[in-house]
Amino acid sequence: MRLLLLSNSTNAGEPYLDYPKHYIKSFLGDKCIKVLFIPYAAVTFSFDEYENRVKARFNEIGHDAISVHHFDSPVEAVRSAEVIVVGGGNTFSLLKLLQQNNLMDIIKEKVDEGIPYIGWSAGSNMACPTICTTNDMPIVQPVDFKAFNFVPFQINPHYTDYVAPGHAGETRDDRINEFLTANPSVTVVGLREGSILKFENSKLELLGKNDIKIFHYNEPTTEYSPESNFSFLI
Amino acid sequence: MRLLLLSNSTNAGEPYLDYPKHYIKSFLGDKCIKVLFIPYAAVTFSFDEYENRVKARFNEIGHDAISVHHFDSPVEAVRSAEVIVVGGGNTFSLLKLLQQNNLMDIIKEKVDEGIPYIGWSAGSNMACPTICTTNDMPIVQPVDFKAFNFVPFQINPHYTDYVAPGHAGETRDDRINEFLTANPSVTVVGLREGSILKFENSKLELLGKNDIKIFHYNEPTTEYSPESNFSFLI
Repeated sequence: MRLLLLSNSTNAGEPYLDYPKHYIKSFLGDKCIKVLFIPYAAVTFSFDEYENRVKARFNEIGHDAISVHHFDSPVEAVRSAEVIVVGGGNTFSLLKLLQQNNLMDIIKEKVDEGIPYIGWSAGSNMACPTICTTNDMPIVQPVDFKAFNFVPFQINPHYTDYVAPGHAGETRDDRINEFLTANPSVTVVGLREGSILKFENSKLELLGKNDIKIFHYNEPTTEYSPESNFSFLI
Repeated sequence: MRLLLLSNSTNAGEPYLDYPKHYIKSFLGDKCIKVLFIPYAAVTFSFDEYENRVKARFNEIGHDAISVHHFDSPVEAVRSAEVIVVGGGNTFSLLKLLQQNNLMDIIKEKVDEGIPYIGWSAGSNMACPTICTTNDMPIVQPVDFKAFNFVPFQINPHYTDYVAPGHAGETRDDRINEFLTANPSVTVVGLREGSILKFENSKLELLGKNDIKIFHYNEPTTEYSPESNFSFLI
């Protein structure tokens, strides 16, 4: 299995998909590939618009992208894809449309067979057992919360331990601790913005400059740097 | 119908349930009432502990509280309740346990008949048509997202337009706009911390010092002060 799981598409103040472009280029290799893009997490902008933004950045690094919404049969589009790329947005919308278009099984099958998978934000959450560590608002209701289960842990994308001054609502850590209390056997990876998890050749690596924070039920959290050995996670 | 819907239990830096206690006292009246407390949103602490914290504050204002988890039949407990109080925590856990204990219909019936309902945070979200404007993590999966539908609009509790510096993830307003795009006919009320919506005698009032922000699909947001007439919302 080959996975590139990004916390976020874009760092604050930078152009769209800019920070990860060299990682994506190196992950995809030199041969020009037209990736199949899944735009279903887009809510407040069109799938065409989303495709255009992604395609422009993939073109810049010598690749191309076509969105699944152009195909009469999304299932056949996935079946013949060389690389699957799942963009961020709203995780509930993404999962609901993947379910409605019958793409859950076929994407899982293809990625299990070795087709590379790139996701960011909601697209990275989809690589986990469930979407239960999303930060998104449940604006629509999927049939269930099960995701692709490519990795055995949960990612919390856009992870931050920043606490807004004067705010009394739950912090991100509070929410993750609630998740762990309800799901005590699961590991949660707090993936900060600018961080990427890469899995290939049976090895998990952390790319980018930031540490990740690992949460287990009823244990102190631990920070791991990009130099760490992450075999314990898989 | 009589409703007291609080954005939050507690303002930052203040004791638990302190800021709203006088509003609750005035809403309940002078006669000592033992309210029925629903603690199901608690995840990282016990129902007993939750009951104790709430009971202590209700005692301070001349009332009392008993939690539904002490009753063999939660349905019968609701049926004989004088006031129903639903505390905050995780909205998904709250809804799931309300469903599992068959309390959705009976609470709706009782409150429609005139039994006062007090909720904060997740408990206020439950007064809306759905839980789809919660800020909480979907740590467990309820059967569906339908809530009590006491008010015809959605509340976003702990509403804030604060944007964390250097963070590229969605803002609260982004998330609410995603909700409105998926549900364009619905009105969303951004209820800031320290704010309370009170509904009685067919009149909706805003209590507290803060304005609320009202969101409609594809329209500029509008701020309304506690002096405003809110009849347009109901």
